[in-house]
Amino acid sequence: VPIGQRSEHSLSYESLMKRAASLVTDSTHTYLSQTTYALIEALTEYTKAVYTLISLQKRFTSMIDKINEKDQDAMWQIIVGARVEVTKRQQEYLKLESNWMTAVKLSEMAAEAAYQTGADQASITTRNHIHLVETQVQDVRQEAQKAATKLAESQTEEIRKYLKNEETETVQKGGQMKTSAADEEMNEAYLRED
Amino acid sequence: VPIGQRSEHSLSYESLMKRAASLVTDSTHTYLSQTTYALIEALTEYTKAVYTLISLQKRFTSMIDKINEKDQDAMWQIIVGARVEVTKRQQEYLKLESNWMTAVKLSEMAAEAAYQTGADQASITTRNHIHLVETQVQDVRQEAQKAATKLAESQTEEIRKYLKNEETETVQKGGQMKTSAADEEMNEAYLRED
Repeated sequence: VPIGQRSEHSLSYESLMKRAASLVTDSTHTYLSQTTYALIEALTEYTKAVYTLISLQKRFTSMIDKINEKDQDAMWQIIVGARVEVTKRQQEYLKLESNWMTAVKLSEMAAEAAYQTGADQASITTRNHIHLVETQVQDVRQEAQKAATKLAESQTEEIRKYLKNEETETVQKGGQMKTSAADEEMNEAYLRED
Repeated sequence: VPIGQRSEHSLSYESLMKRAASLVTDSTHTYLSQTTYALIEALTEYTKAVYTLISLQKRFTSMIDKINEKDQDAMWQIIVGARVEVTKRQQEYLKLESNWMTAVKLSEMAAEAAYQTGADQASITTRNHIHLVETQVQDVRQEAQKAATKLAESQTEEIRKYLKNEETETVQKGGQMKTSAADEEMNEAYLRED
């Protein structure tokens, strides 16, 4: 806030209100920027976590025949951890999304207030800013949705492969109970995500 | 904005958002105060203008028999001026009322944003401020409504008196055209207010 700056108008209520409305657009601008940064980071982290989970699951399925039971359990623990991370990141971005939407609404109303008091430039700047961050968020959100779709596809595929593999194994090993129990557990875990 | 002030928290997105939300409550506080002052002043000016008009009309009716036609015209011009003033003041407070309502909505949303980011104290302070100014505005608004009601009552009464007076005069003067025309004009002017 440039304190030294003098208004050319007298300090009428009108000019005081106009100034105050401009201060509101300034602060909502900052708030909208902060929530946008936070939301974009959260969406990006979520997307990364999803791709990590996808690649871990692929690796698990490709290795399952070649590694022993102990290593399988260890690998499975890592996948469970990655799944927890995805859920955590998702909750985080959903929380930040609600902050961000409040920030957008605040900015829209600040633009309206600026317009009402004749602070047209502040109003236009605010509307442009809203438009900009909406585009930014939309892009990152699409990436996150793409990742989520891939995860769902990958899981369906992994389950199919796993079940096929399991079938073969069951036939080979004559219906070993241990593997069947692990399989059930895994299917449940897979289905939980949906 | 105290630039030298250091936060004890690390500069996480959370703390940045919390700060930004607090800045929003600060600026909406100022905007709400400014619009409240302006609205209260406008309502007060409107109320004053209404009472001025009421007293002018009373004086006019009480004097009308005692003053000559030229003075009646001059007096009538003053009343028309007072009436214009009332309309102007009314338009002014209606405009400011819409600013004020935007300011209230902005403050409510700022309180919500502060709450969402964990800036509870800022949220509570904002809600208290909203409650305070709503009470203040309500009081002044009631005074304005009281004045408006009195004006309506007074006008009805004045018209009745004037018509009665006119009737007597018309009987006395044998239906003089000039007075009848002025009377019509006056009634129209009175009715326009409704």
